Amino acid sequence: MSVVGIIIGSKSDFDIAGESVKMLKKFGVQSDVVISSAHRSPENTSEWSKNAKEKGYSVIIAFAGAAAHLAGVVASETNIPVVAVPISATSLSGLDALLSMVQMPGGVPVAVMAIGKSGAVNAAIFACQIIALKEPEMYEKLNKYRDEMRRKLSNDNEELKAILEKL
Amino acid sequence: MSVVGIIIGSKSDFDIAGESVKMLKKFGVQSDVVISSAHRSPENTSEWSKNAKEKGYSVIIAFAGAAAHLAGVVASETNIPVVAVPISATSLSGLDALLSMVQMPGGVPVAVMAIGKSGAVNAAIFACQIIALKEPEMYEKLNKYRDEMRRKLSNDNEELKAILEKL
Amino acid sequence: MSVVGIIIGSKSDFDIAGESVKMLKKFGVQSDVVISSAHRSPENTSEWSKNAKEKGYSVIIAFAGAAAHLAGVVASETNIPVVAVPISATSLSGLDALLSMVQMPGGVPVAVMAIGKSGAVNAAIFACQIIALKEPEMYEKLNKYRDEMRRKLSNDNEELKAILEKL
Amino acid sequence: MSVVGIIIGSKSDFDIAGESVKMLKKFGVQSDVVISSAHRSPENTSEWSKNAKEKGYSVIIAFAGAAAHLAGVVASETNIPVVAVPISATSLSGLDALLSMVQMPGGVPVAVMAIGKSGAVNAAIFACQIIALKEPEMYEKLNKYRDEMRRKLSNDNEELKAILEKL
Amino acid sequence: MSVVGIIIGSKSDFDIAGESVKMLKKFGVQSDVVISSAHRSPENTSEWSKNAKEKGYSVIIAFAGAAAHLAGVVASETNIPVVAVPISATSLSGLDALLSMVQMPGGVPVAVMAIGKSGAVNAAIFACQIIALKEPEMYEKLNKYRDEMRRKLSNDNEELKAILEKL
Amino acid sequence: MSVVGIIIGSKSDFDIAGESVKMLKKFGVQSDVVISSAHRSPENTSEWSKNAKEKGYSVIIAFAGAAAHLAGVVASETNIPVVAVPISATSLSGLDALLSMVQMPGGVPVAVMAIGKSGAVNAAIFACQIIALKEPEMYEKLNKYRDEMRRKLSNDNEELKAILEKL
Amino acid sequence: MSVVGIIIGSKSDFDIAGESVKMLKKFGVQSDVVISSAHRSPENTSEWSKNAKEKGYSVIIAFAGAAAHLAGVVASETNIPVVAVPISATSLSGLDALLSMVQMPGGVPVAVMAIGKSGAVNAAIFACQIIALKEPEMYEKLNKYRDEMRRKLSNDNEELKAILEKL
Amino acid sequence: MSVVGIIIGSKSDFDIAGESVKMLKKFGVQSDVVISSAHRSPENTSEWSKNAKEKGYSVIIAFAGAAAHLAGVVASETNIPVVAVPISATSLSGLDALLSMVQMPGGVPVAVMAIGKSGAVNAAIFACQIIALKEPEMYEKLNKYRDEMRRKLSNDNEELKAILEKL
Repeated sequence: MSVVGIIIGSKSDFDIAGESVKMLKKFGVQSDVVISSAHRSPENTSEWSKNAKEKGYSVIIAFAGAAAHLAGVVASETNIPVVAVPISATSLSGLDALLSMVQMPGGVPVAVMAIGKSGAVNAAIFACQIIALKEPEMYEKLNKYRDEMRRKLSNDNEELKAILEKL
Repeated sequence: MSVVGIIIGSKSDFDIAGESVKMLKKFGVQSDVVISSAHRSPENTSEWSKNAKEKGYSVIIAFAGAAAHLAGVVASETNIPVVAVPISATSLSGLDALLSMVQMPGGVPVAVMAIGKSGAVNAAIFACQIIALKEPEMYEKLNKYRDEMRRKLSNDNEELKAILEKL
Repeated sequence: MSVVGIIIGSKSDFDIAGESVKMLKKFGVQSDVVISSAHRSPENTSEWSKNAKEKGYSVIIAFAGAAAHLAGVVASETNIPVVAVPISATSLSGLDALLSMVQMPGGVPVAVMAIGKSGAVNAAIFACQIIALKEPEMYEKLNKYRDEMRRKLSNDNEELKAILEKL
Repeated sequence: MSVVGIIIGSKSDFDIAGESVKMLKKFGVQSDVVISSAHRSPENTSEWSKNAKEKGYSVIIAFAGAAAHLAGVVASETNIPVVAVPISATSLSGLDALLSMVQMPGGVPVAVMAIGKSGAVNAAIFACQIIALKEPEMYEKLNKYRDEMRRKLSNDNEELKAILEKL
Repeated sequence: MSVVGIIIGSKSDFDIAGESVKMLKKFGVQSDVVISSAHRSPENTSEWSKNAKEKGYSVIIAFAGAAAHLAGVVASETNIPVVAVPISATSLSGLDALLSMVQMPGGVPVAVMAIGKSGAVNAAIFACQIIALKEPEMYEKLNKYRDEMRRKLSNDNEELKAILEKL
Repeated sequence: MSVVGIIIGSKSDFDIAGESVKMLKKFGVQSDVVISSAHRSPENTSEWSKNAKEKGYSVIIAFAGAAAHLAGVVASETNIPVVAVPISATSLSGLDALLSMVQMPGGVPVAVMAIGKSGAVNAAIFACQIIALKEPEMYEKLNKYRDEMRRKLSNDNEELKAILEKL
Repeated sequence: MSVVGIIIGSKSDFDIAGESVKMLKKFGVQSDVVISSAHRSPENTSEWSKNAKEKGYSVIIAFAGAAAHLAGVVASETNIPVVAVPISATSLSGLDALLSMVQMPGGVPVAVMAIGKSGAVNAAIFACQIIALKEPEMYEKLNKYRDEMRRKLSNDNEELKAILEKL
Repeated sequence: MSVVGIIIGSKSDFDIAGESVKMLKKFGVQSDVVISSAHRSPENTSEWSKNAKEKGYSVIIAFAGAAAHLAGVVASETNIPVVAVPISATSLSGLDALLSMVQMPGGVPVAVMAIGKSGAVNAAIFACQIIALKEPEMYEKLNKYRDEMRRKLSNDNEELKAILEKL
C-alpha cells in the first residue's frame, strides 16, 4: 500500500495540512506527518528527505508559509515527487510563500498547489493520481470522487432553486 | 515505455514547451505534443483530455499564457496527473498565467511549475520522477542528472576562479 | 421578453450573484441561475453553454473566484455575450479571479466587471444595456435608474449637511 | 447597419485600437474613431458620449492607458454598452489602466477586455456578439470565425509536426 | 479667508474625508463639502469643478475609492490645484484607487496623498501650505503644529520609558 | 517672480526632471535645480530644505527612484509645499519609488505625481496652479495651455482621419 | 557589554519592537529604545543617529511602517550597522514599508528583516550574531538557542502525534 | 584580517556579485567566492555554511534569483551573519527573490539588501560596517567613502549647471 510523506514547517501549519491527511484517508492512502523546518532543523529535514525513498513514500507533500523554502530543500535531497502547498502565514497573504515555492530554478522540480485549504485538498488528490499509475484500482476511487462532486453540485442546484423562489 | 502528453495553448508556446520535449528525450521518455486551446478548440481539448488515459499517457504537461485555463480544463476531464507551466505572454510577465493555473479550487488539482523555461525543464523532470514510481530504473537516470548538475557547478567554480584572479 | 443566463462556479458565489438577480428583476428582466463548475462539472457547463442561444439567453453572466476559468470556458462554447464577475474567494483578494477572467487571449471575448458586489450590480445593468438594443423601452428604465442614483446623491448631500453642522 | 463608436485617449493608442477597427471590418461592421481625452478635452468627450445613442452606435469601445478614466467617463453619459481596453502605456505595464477601468463602482458599468492587442481584438468580437442580438445573421459570421480559428490550430499542428521531427 | 472645496465620491467616504475637515478647522480654514460622483452625477461634478474658482476655493481635495476617477475628472475642469486621497473601498485595499488617481497623463495634474486617514490629514495640511503662499500668517500655525507633533513624540517617549521599566 | 526649487536624488534623474524645468520655463517660471541625496548628502539636503522659504521658493519638486526618501526628508524640514515625482530606476518599475513617496504618515504631506515623464510635466503644471493663487495672471497661461492641448487633439484627429482612410 | 540602539517611528510600533527588546534581553544584550520619526522629529532623529557610535551602540534596529524612511535616514548619518523591520501599518499590508526600506540606493546600506514580529525577533538575533564577532561567548548562546528551537520542534512532533491518533 | 564569504547560486549571478567583491577590495577586505546552489548542490552548500566560522568569515553574502532559498539555507547552518542580495533572474523582476529572502520566519535571520547591483554594493559596505566593530580603523575608510560620495555629488552639481545653462 502506498504511503505519502507529509512535512510541515511549523505546528500551526497542521490546520491546513490536516485537510490532506483527511483526503488521503478518504482514498485509502496512509500518510506520515512530520514537523521539520528548513531553517530551524535543517539536518532533520535533510535526513527525512534522503530517507523518503527508503521509507517507501510514493509522493511527498510539503507545507510552509512566509519564505517557504521547505519544499525546495526537501526536493534537493530526493527524487520522490515533491508537491508543495503555500500557506498564508504573514501579512502578504501567502503571495510570499507561493513565489518562494513555485519559482524553482531548472533542475529541481517542486509542484505547487493553490494557497491554503484548496491546495491541501488538491495535493492529496494529486498524490492519489500519481499513486494510480502503479495502483490502477485508484482510478475507480478518483472517478467516484468526481461523481460525488457532480452530485454535490446537483444538490446545490436544488437548494439554490428554493432560495431563488423566495427571492 | 512511458509517454508524456504535452498540450500547448498556441504555437508560439512551443518556444518554451520544446525544453520539456528535449529534457524528456534526455531521460528516454517519449512525448506527444499537440496544440489545442481551451478557448479556440474546446471540443478538441476536451476529447484529447478524455483520451489521455487510453493513449497511455503517464503524465500530462500543459503550457499556456495570459488567462491560462488550459491546464485546469484538461484536469477537469482526466485523472492523469496534470503539470502546468505558466508562460509570460502578456505585459503582466506571466503573473496572470501563474495565478490562473495555481489557484485551482479544491477537487481538481493542477501542479504548477515556475514561469517559463525553468518551469518547462522542471515539468519534464517531475514527469520522470512520477514515471519512476513504476519504472524504478528511472531513478538511476535522475540521480545521474543530479550528479551532472553538481559536476557542472564544479566546472563553473573552476571558471570563476580564473575570472576572480583577473579581477 | 429577455432572459439572462447566470452561471456560478459554487453555491457560495450566490452571495454575490444574488445582487445581479435582484438588479435584473428591478429592470423587469428574468434570469435563470445555475451552479456549474468549469472543473467539477465540465460536461454540464459545456452543455449549458452550447444551449444558451437555443434557450434564448440574451446575455450570460458568469461568477467565479480563485482560478476563475468559468467565464472563459462558457465563452468558448457560445457566441452569446459573456459578462464575468470575479469573486474574492481566496487570500489573494480576487486579484487571482480578476486576472484569470480578464486576460483572455484574442478570439474569445469575456467582458469583465469589478470584483464582488459592485461587479454583480454592474453586470446586471450592462446586460440591460445590451438588451436595450432590441428592446428600446429599456432605455427609459435605464435613464430612470440614473435619475434615481442622482436623487440618492442629492439626499446624501442633505444628510451630510446635518452631519457637518454637528462637527 | 450597425456602427461601433471607438474613442481613444491619445493618438498613440491607435496602435492598439487599429486592431478593433480591422476586426470589425472583417465582420462587416463600420466604426467611427475619435481621439478625445477624459482629461484634456472633457467637454468634447462628454458631448461625444451624450450623442452616442443619437448617432446610432450599438456599442462603444474605449481605449486608454495610465489612469484610464476614459471608459468610465463615457459610460457616465450614456446607456450604450461601453467596452474598455486597457493599454500598457507606463512603467506599470497596464496594471494601472486595468484597475482604473475594471473597478467601476456599482451603477455605471464598463466591460473590460484584456490589456493590449488581445483586448482590442476581443472588444471587436464582443461588439459583434452584442450586435448579433438584433442582426441574427451576424451569428453565422461569428461561427465562421470560430471555424477559422480551429482550422488555424489544425494548420499549426501540421507545422509543429515538421518541427518535432527535426528536433 | 481661504476656503477649501472638498468633493467625495460617496457618502461613506466621509469617514475618511471628515479628517480633512477637522484638520482644516484646526488651522482656521473653512471647507465646503459636497458628495458628487464622477460616474453617477457627472454633470453636477463638472459644474461644481467649473465653478471652483468663482466660489473662491484655494484648493480642492477629492476623495474616492475603487476606480477613483473623481479627482481626474475635477482636475479636467479647473486650474485650482486638486489634491486626491485614495480610499480603500474594495478587496484590493486601495491599490486600485491609488493607481487610478496617481497615474494621470501629462497635462492635467492631480496631487496624491496616502491611502486613507493619513492621506486625509495630510491633504488638509498640504492645502494649508498652499494657502500660506498668500496668507503668510499660516506659516506660524504650520510651524506650531510641527512643534506640537514633536512634543507629542516627547510625551510618547516618557510613556514608553514606563512601559520599558515594567518589561 | 516665483521660483520653484527642484531637488533630484542623483544626476541620472535629470532625464526626467528636465521635463519639469522646460515646462516651468514655458509658463515663465524660473527654477533652481540641485542634486542632493537623502542618504548620501543628508546634511546638504537638510540645509537646502530649511532654506527653501528664505530662498523664496513657492513650491518644491523632488525627484527620486528606488527607496525614494528624498521628498519625505525635504518635507520634514519645511512647510513649503513639496511635490514628488517617482522615478522608475530599479527592476520594480517605479512601484518602489511610488509607495516610498505616497504612503507618508499623517503630519508631513508630500503630493505625489505619476511615475516618470508624465509626472514631471504635471509637477510643473501643478506648481504653476499653486503659484496662480498669488499671481492670478498665471490662470490665463494655464487656460491657454489647456486650449493648446485641445487644439493638439483636434490636429491628431485630422491626422487619424488620413490614417483611417488608408486602412 | 554590548548595547543595541532601537529607534521606532511611532509609539504604536512598540507592539512589534517589544519583541526585539525581549529577545535581546534573552541573549543578555541591553537595548536603548527611542521613539523618533524621520518626518515629525528629523533633527532629533539625525542627532540620535550621529551619536550612535559615541553612545557605544554595536547595532541599530529601526522599526517603521508606511513610507518607512526611518532606517534610511538613520543609516545616512552613521556607519553603525542599521537593521530594519518593516511594519504592516496601512491597507497595503507592509509591502509599502518593505519596499521603502529594502530598495536603498548603492552607498548607504540598510539590512532588512521580515515584515512584523518575525522580523523583530530576527533583528535581535542578527544583532547578536554581529555582536558575537567581538564577544565570542555569544556564539554559545546562539547555538543554545538553535538547540532550543530544535527541541521545541521535537515537542511539537510529540503533540502532533497525539492529534493524528485522534483524527 | 577579515574575510567575507560570498556564495552565489549560479555562475551568471557573478555579474551582480562581482560588485561586492570589488567594493570589498576597495575597503581592503578579502573575499572568498563560491558557486553553490541550495537545490543542485545541497550537501556542498551545507558543508560550506557549517565551516564558515572555522574558515574565519566575519560575514557571509549570499546571492540568488527566482525562489531564492540560498541565503536561508546558509543561515540555517551557521551563526555568522548572513546578508542576502536578491537577483532579478525571472520575468517577475526579482520580486520573487526578494520575498523568498526577506520573509524568513522568526529564529533564523537573513539581512536583505536591494535587488541587483545596488544591493551588491550595499552588502559589501554593510559587511565592512560589521567588521568595523572589531577593526575600528575601518570606520575611517567608511567615513572617507561617505566624503567621496558627497564630493561626487558636488561634481555632479557642477556638471548639471553646465547642462542647465544650455537648456
